[in-house]
Amino acid sequence: MSDKFPETIYDVKTPSFLVDIDVIQRNVTRMKETCDRLGVQLRPHMKTHKTVELGEMMTDGTKKCLVVSTLDEAEFYASHGFDDILYAYPITQHKLGRCRRLGEKLDKFHMMFESPEGLESLKTSPRGNDRKWSVYLEIDLGLGRTGVEWDSEMALTLATEAANSPGIEFLGLYVHSGDSYLARGPDQMRESGKRNTDKLLQLKVRLAEAGVTCRSLCMGSTPGCSHPDDSMAQLDAFSPGNYAFYDAMQLRIGSCEEKDIACRVICRVISHKRSQNKMSVDAGFLGLSQDGMDQGLAGGPVVFQGHPELKLLGMCQELGSVGTQGTPLDFSKYPIGSLLFIYPHHSCATAALYENYYVHSGEKIVGVWKPTRGW
Amino acid sequence: MSDKFPETIYDVKTPSFLVDIDVIQRNVTRMKETCDRLGVQLRPHMKTHKTVELGEMMTDGTKKCLVVSTLDEAEFYASHGFDDILYAYPITQHKLGRCRRLGEKLDKFHMMFESPEGLESLKTSPRGNDRKWSVYLEIDLGLGRTGVEWDSEMALTLATEAANSPGIEFLGLYVHSGDSYLARGPDQMRESGKRNTDKLLQLKVRLAEAGVTCRSLCMGSTPGCSHPDDSMAQLDAFSPGNYAFYDAMQLRIGSCEEKDIACRVICRVISHKRSQNKMSVDAGFLGLSQDGMDQGLAGGPVVFQGHPELKLLGMCQELGSVGTQGTPLDFSKYPIGSLLFIYPHHSCATAALYENYYVHSGEKIVGVWKPTRGW
Repeated sequence: MSDKFPETIYDVKTPSFLVDIDVIQRNVTRMKETCDRLGVQLRPHMKTHKTVELGEMMTDGTKKCLVVSTLDEAEFYASHGFDDILYAYPITQHKLGRCRRLGEKLDKFHMMFESPEGLESLKTSPRGNDRKWSVYLEIDLGLGRTGVEWDSEMALTLATEAANSPGIEFLGLYVHSGDSYLARGPDQMRESGKRNTDKLLQLKVRLAEAGVTCRSLCMGSTPGCSHPDDSMAQLDAFSPGNYAFYDAMQLRIGSCEEKDIACRVICRVISHKRSQNKMSVDAGFLGLSQDGMDQGLAGGPVVFQGHPELKLLGMCQELGSVGTQGTPLDFSKYPIGSLLFIYPHHSCATAALYENYYVHSGEKIVGVWKPTRGW
Repeated sequence: MSDKFPETIYDVKTPSFLVDIDVIQRNVTRMKETCDRLGVQLRPHMKTHKTVELGEMMTDGTKKCLVVSTLDEAEFYASHGFDDILYAYPITQHKLGRCRRLGEKLDKFHMMFESPEGLESLKTSPRGNDRKWSVYLEIDLGLGRTGVEWDSEMALTLATEAANSPGIEFLGLYVHSGDSYLARGPDQMRESGKRNTDKLLQLKVRLAEAGVTCRSLCMGSTPGCSHPDDSMAQLDAFSPGNYAFYDAMQLRIGSCEEKDIACRVICRVISHKRSQNKMSVDAGFLGLSQDGMDQGLAGGPVVFQGHPELKLLGMCQELGSVGTQGTPLDFSKYPIGSLLFIYPHHSCATAALYENYYVHSGEKIVGVWKPTRGW
């Protein structure tokens, strides 16, 4: 790519990943205001975009207090002057070497554990330099992914053991409130938020009764934090990540409106298959990601901006097959070479496929952001 | 990443993408021998791996006569001294600028068209320097993706018009014989190969009757070329791509045996969820790709080497959820921190997620290959 970037969004090669800086600014400001109103700390997650530029915006220019999902991200942000980083991933022995080096570089570096094995590795591999490992216990509120079950004896056991370990600073509880993804509309998101907050507070009380202090209850998920219940003011920190970009999935859930989606794939119609009432665009699964294709969504996983009748039928590596929902495809509306703008189903998955994001204000390209990737 | 690469496959970070150089060499040699036996030219496709090193191996050290799927790949290989490159993607007007620059750099650069619009763009935007655009007509043998229908009048019209255009050198017919992916086992692959060859030859005869000479019939697809029918000796060139790596999908189809799969994702068990008879590994959809998850495959889309009982239940960004097929999961066999080796469902999709491939011979890492990506 030449150093000089294209002048407008119509000048980029296809497919490309576009992000609207004005929409992003609005989304970032809104989430900050939400947290300020509730009196909780915003600790935003970087995993969706993995860029320095948006990291700065989401941390309100402070470059402090953030969450990452991989050690690569932690190292990337640390090398760009960010600090107070939470590596929110179940810690295991073999990752502690890199964590120790991060801990040496940063003023504040936090981790997460959820198993006896993870805790044991922290106890037997001290952080060094007379500093403690700073850790959250990951809680599973019923979704069954990672995390220790919120109402289990194991939650008490692990928290107590961590709090009593001389080499560990026990911060509190971290949870990804994934059931908010099952909600549809703001009311259901608030119900989910209330339910999850209740559970975390119950566990906090049980831990207090056992003599363990939780200084911080940190809860993530973009739907839950986009429409929080007032009871969530009792939490200490929110760690949503997808709210800067949003996507077609968040639109379907009701986390955002279409005007809030800040990212799009721009692609072109390159082939008409009139005998089959469909056409091809030059974005396949390497440009859009397969995420969502297994969910049988009536309009396809993605949303075609301005063309609600269009449906993504399938993808191969470099081709997307596009048809209609029921009606005949009016090929005259989509001449070969014409541009289409696609809201990705899941912006985390789609953004990760691009080496660069083209940042625009209106139609004008104003920057190019380069995400980190890898592990 | 440090310049010095890890010593063995057990020293890489997880997840990583491993490729076995000895298996690759065997696969590459076998395909070359297959083509030599049939007397067809091997014009291998680079889209699966996109590396210089494997490009050299697949072209038998010549760095000539290859196929690519994106202009980025074409430019990447051209910049590394490869030549005689076919850009096998439906050409459209807006890509001709880059094609013209490629054509200036290369001795031989070929393209593919499949629509009146694509042909028109070639006619109205000459290649320059008194050289002709060198093009194949893409044929659809019934799968309905891109390509002009093999038995249509349009196929005759387009071929005739191209052959009679002074700025165009008409090479012949190019087809991705995708129906070979519907085959199960070598016999069905050969049947598919025979059927598709028959159709292409019929079209060649029809074109000859119309005064149009096809100098080359080029057919791709890894299953079809892995187990070709003898009738395919009547074709001029094969352009398979996946045969160097293969994957779990090719194993299911019957293109290869397990010992032929040259690529694996190495990952670790990081969490046990005993209450739900499942565990998590540190490879999610950014390490494995979602490809295949929508196909309801009984054992999951991927194959766990040495553990036929394991099944990939689902993925989030950085976590894979792994369970069993029917039986209780024996957690003692998979302690936290233990390694698992996964054959990807679709190596084209999975390889594209990695910045580097770790190349090994036996357990020893012998190199690191860096693929190109983008469009």
